[in-house]
Amino acid sequence: MSTSAAPFNRSALEQVLLKRFFYAPAFAIYGGVAGLYDYGPPGCALQANVLDIWRKHFVLEEDMLEVDCSIMTPAEVLKTSGHVDRFSDWMCKDLKSGEIFRADHLVENVLEARIEGDAIARNQEVEAKKVDEKKKKKAAKVSAVRLDDQVVQTYKEILAQIDNYSGPELGEIMRTHQIKSPETGNDLSEPQVFNLMFASSIGPTGQFPGYLRPETAQGQFLNFKRLLEYNNDRMPFASAQIGRSFRNEISPREGLLRVREFTMAEIEHYVDPAKKDHPRFKEVSDYALNILPASVQLQGKTDLVKITVGEAVKQKIIDNETLGYFLVRIHQFLVKIGINADRVRFRQHMANEMAHYACDCWDAEIHTSFGWKECVGCADRSAYDLTVHSNKTGEKLVVRERLPEPLTEEKLQIEVNKKVFGPRFKKNAKVVEDHLTGLDQCTLEGLKKSFDDKDSFSVNVNNEDFEVTKDLIAKFEKVSVTTHIREYTPNVIEPSFGIGRILYALMEHVYYVRPEDEQRGVLGFPPVVAPTKCLLVPLSSNEAFVPALNEVSTLLRKAGVSNKVDDSGAAIGRRYARNDELGTPFGITIDFQTVQDGTITLRERDSTKQIREKMSVIVELVKDMCEGRTTWEEVQAKYPAFVGQEVSE
Amino acid sequence: MSTSAAPFNRSALEQVLLKRFFYAPAFAIYGGVAGLYDYGPPGCALQANVLDIWRKHFVLEEDMLEVDCSIMTPAEVLKTSGHVDRFSDWMCKDLKSGEIFRADHLVENVLEARIEGDAIARNQEVEAKKVDEKKKKKAAKVSAVRLDDQVVQTYKEILAQIDNYSGPELGEIMRTHQIKSPETGNDLSEPQVFNLMFASSIGPTGQFPGYLRPETAQGQFLNFKRLLEYNNDRMPFASAQIGRSFRNEISPREGLLRVREFTMAEIEHYVDPAKKDHPRFKEVSDYALNILPASVQLQGKTDLVKITVGEAVKQKIIDNETLGYFLVRIHQFLVKIGINADRVRFRQHMANEMAHYACDCWDAEIHTSFGWKECVGCADRSAYDLTVHSNKTGEKLVVRERLPEPLTEEKLQIEVNKKVFGPRFKKNAKVVEDHLTGLDQCTLEGLKKSFDDKDSFSVNVNNEDFEVTKDLIAKFEKVSVTTHIREYTPNVIEPSFGIGRILYALMEHVYYVRPEDEQRGVLGFPPVVAPTKCLLVPLSSNEAFVPALNEVSTLLRKAGVSNKVDDSGAAIGRRYARNDELGTPFGITIDFQTVQDGTITLRERDSTKQIREKMSVIVELVKDMCEGRTTWEEVQAKYPAFVGQEVSE
Repeated sequence: MSTSAAPFNRSALEQVLLKRFFYAPAFAIYGGVAGLYDYGPPGCALQANVLDIWRKHFVLEEDMLEVDCSIMTPAEVLKTSGHVDRFSDWMCKDLKSGEIFRADHLVENVLEARIEGDAIARNQEVEAKKVDEKKKKKAAKVSAVRLDDQVVQTYKEILAQIDNYSGPELGEIMRTHQIKSPETGNDLSEPQVFNLMFASSIGPTGQFPGYLRPETAQGQFLNFKRLLEYNNDRMPFASAQIGRSFRNEISPREGLLRVREFTMAEIEHYVDPAKKDHPRFKEVSDYALNILPASVQLQGKTDLVKITVGEAVKQKIIDNETLGYFLVRIHQFLVKIGINADRVRFRQHMANEMAHYACDCWDAEIHTSFGWKECVGCADRSAYDLTVHSNKTGEKLVVRERLPEPLTEEKLQIEVNKKVFGPRFKKNAKVVEDHLTGLDQCTLEGLKKSFDDKDSFSVNVNNEDFEVTKDLIAKFEKVSVTTHIREYTPNVIEPSFGIGRILYALMEHVYYVRPEDEQRGVLGFPPVVAPTKCLLVPLSSNEAFVPALNEVSTLLRKAGVSNKVDDSGAAIGRRYARNDELGTPFGITIDFQTVQDGTITLRERDSTKQIREKMSVIVELVKDMCEGRTTWEEVQAKYPAFVGQEVSE
Repeated sequence: MSTSAAPFNRSALEQVLLKRFFYAPAFAIYGGVAGLYDYGPPGCALQANVLDIWRKHFVLEEDMLEVDCSIMTPAEVLKTSGHVDRFSDWMCKDLKSGEIFRADHLVENVLEARIEGDAIARNQEVEAKKVDEKKKKKAAKVSAVRLDDQVVQTYKEILAQIDNYSGPELGEIMRTHQIKSPETGNDLSEPQVFNLMFASSIGPTGQFPGYLRPETAQGQFLNFKRLLEYNNDRMPFASAQIGRSFRNEISPREGLLRVREFTMAEIEHYVDPAKKDHPRFKEVSDYALNILPASVQLQGKTDLVKITVGEAVKQKIIDNETLGYFLVRIHQFLVKIGINADRVRFRQHMANEMAHYACDCWDAEIHTSFGWKECVGCADRSAYDLTVHSNKTGEKLVVRERLPEPLTEEKLQIEVNKKVFGPRFKKNAKVVEDHLTGLDQCTLEGLKKSFDDKDSFSVNVNNEDFEVTKDLIAKFEKVSVTTHIREYTPNVIEPSFGIGRILYALMEHVYYVRPEDEQRGVLGFPPVVAPTKCLLVPLSSNEAFVPALNEVSTLLRKAGVSNKVDDSGAAIGRRYARNDELGTPFGITIDFQTVQDGTITLRERDSTKQIREKMSVIVELVKDMCEGRTTWEEVQAKYPAFVGQEVSE
């Protein structure tokens, strides 16, 4: 990447993105709706290219089973998955104006502004360049108030674990630190829970509630049985899905980073809980990542640890090989599409911020001008989802594996004495018996102890206690059981990609301005993701260029290289500038020499260097660079630089 | 396509599609929800391939601007577009059981069943094979009642224009023909209107209503200004979008044909209303289509007319070249993906069935075992959408074109006499004046006539009449006006594809059973859309085959040919049978001769014929066939058939 002449300027980038219609607020002519965006032609093409790489990198490379499931989801499914009760944020209300805030963001913004104000007051040098627009505004708003060292320290500690607080804890912080409604200074309500799903109703009766899915995962879990069968019952395997999800954010902000509707790409990798190793782990074990474990954050710190995945798994910082393998694959993907490797870190979730379904989670966070932002989550969802859906529906969502050799074990078995059991428990007899015979070995061991000691034990079924005495039991002893089949509920490792966030971070990372001209912004996309690969520029609108122009265009199209002709007649420099903003990596010029000898010049965007070769050679080179088989550096090493002028007559 | 040994059997096809997980009812383990489906791995790949062809055939070939817009849509937008008031079907309710029916479907089903019953009663030979499952059930349910010839004729006439009735008309038919709730025989309510959009609410206040988009079109219209600018203000041009839309159908039925959530691919082609010709029309004018004009249907007939598009446009059966051009392009696309050309017709909408935004509409209907089904709509939406959004928001959604030379016209101009006008109309003076000065030339001509004849005219503004007398008018005469710019609202021609319906029709069209074995179903997808292109079969699980297997697989992957290895150890015939059901067009066998000389056998699914060549030759041939550059017939003509056996040791 070229080095930029100027420090990163977010508003300049945003202007380019809007002007070139990478994306724009949706429904803008109606005033827009916070958190909803439309992608224009270059944004749409960029997204398609990134998804195409994603599909090759994950689905094809690892033979995953891709599915495409329903977005509209019955409430019952999301009740079972826990989303109806627990997929929520904390909001609080300005008690007079009625304005609504997301509680954790409010605390974060206010404390950051106070620290800023303190810094100004201390007359420290506030490095103006590093303070982004929003912070500037905030800083301008807060008075420069000097705080005690101890207070600043407390604020910093709160901020380091801002994602870790419950609603009541946030309320406590707001009271302790006198946090009010920022614009009005009014009092705020206690944080209240707000469910983030969009609700609707399915069918004409109005009596069948549904939600828009908040993640693509549930559709994959519900199809587990079909997928396992499709995979010829082989384990481990993964399903994958690319699609739209919806979250009714309390206060969307930061452009594409927090939106209400977004494209996700999710992988559900089903693994034997007893074998979380990964066959390809050794291929990646030397790969080093920047990580931020939960233990570090809980000390109120954010220092990164650079460590190989092999070492991190060995030290149990990362729980298992499969999780480690996917962290590396995620990192490789991000780098492949053009994300700056130095600006990626993996942050482990702290206990309270973990989603209700996860038992461990690492976020791939990408550094942007808004700070570190979660762009990919990689959660170990354990057997949570398959278990709850199975319990609810009675459908077994398990793997049954023939054991290499039959396994004979001593197992506790319990049998009731029906003659006494029925009359004693009457209408409850059936459920109590089912409960007893369904108990796992561990629980049975406990009961057996009590049974041997006291000739009875008690069980709780449907919130009612039942005393089971010796006379009720026909048999309660170890018997030798031979099994040929092992049955287990797989665990799920889930890498989950927020595509819009990744695209935004990518656009920040590749954006620079020409060293020779600060007004000239360039989106330095790697060829493989660039929306348009090649610009075709005839030197002028002279009719003589048309046949060659059509020939190159057809050759490129056949080679699968997207290209645009600019025959607008503007100066060539101006035509290139427009395409700098679109991130088009290559430009081909057709001049009078082309008409004579069939050669064309190829110009590369970042270096602005050129070569001149026969049409067929150039097309092949462009194709190879766009498909990642070679690079401009290699091409330059092989072909002489063309330093002449285009032949204008 | 191979001819089938047996007539089409829908339930056999459905079993294959479910077993191989092309698609399945969504949320099946929760009992499912009518009208919601999930695509499994082969269905998902089939869909991706069809969309890829769609993108190449339309977006790339015609340089369209692809966008990706928000699904969640503020109510105000859909109020303006007319969907809140008019995007609805008629439903009626069983007055006792509460069961809800879509009124037109109910009438259709009942009358069809009666005609069936009559046919049985007449002891006509009901060709059992042509009667599908559902009709059989219906026929079994209705008693075989003989009807008058006249009644049968009336029923047939109603059915021919079933899509043309309003709710009250359906109610009238139900009363006249004694239509009751089919299962219970109970009375039914009058047809009531039911809006087909899924409603939700955006943001935390609950006070910002939204709907899930019922079509992808509105997002494109709202971005018209940005898109025109992106296209350097050139006309005509088209935007396109592929994405999910939602319709809360009253009673979804017929599998993928009527669902509540579906992927659409829509094109909005913006055209100068004064120039609806198309630059490429002459390329397609000799292309013949089967069409069913509205005029024929209104006579209660369904006879197809075979006519070239050139002739149809000339005769004004098809309104204009652009519409005609797209009908051909749609037909070409359908044939390309494998739809049987003889089973496609273009049916023109009758006045009452036209969507509220359309002024002309032709559906590409594909024949399936459910009858003729609309799979692509091609509507002329005129300037409807851009006009209503522009009026509502005040944002000009127009094209401004510099005229080749300035245009000087005589135009009627009206000017009020403010001194008298104000006092006379008081608070209404402003609106009446604005009304008068905003009138178009045609209306002004009319008023001028009355004005000249009677020295006054009357206008209606906001439902109030105003008499405008001579003393109120300062000037009302022709003046010479010179314009340099022509401003107009483009008309929109909209080809709109229901992808799920097309996929289902395709699967019906390509399905057949092996002549030699009725149990063996084949999905004869053209290679270009087949979910998996190539099956790799080692003769046995012998280790000796592994290197060659890996080599072929890598070569195919590099060539972009999706392939699966089946090393399951089942008999080769059985492995091929499984892949017949998945529609895999090619099979490559690796045997001991491969190990010796590097040759492999290539088998084609439909002919079951084989050739044997070097690995690199076969891979190249498969790639060419999958990308449509050559066909199996051509390959067979060039390479000798391999009739030997695989070398098993």
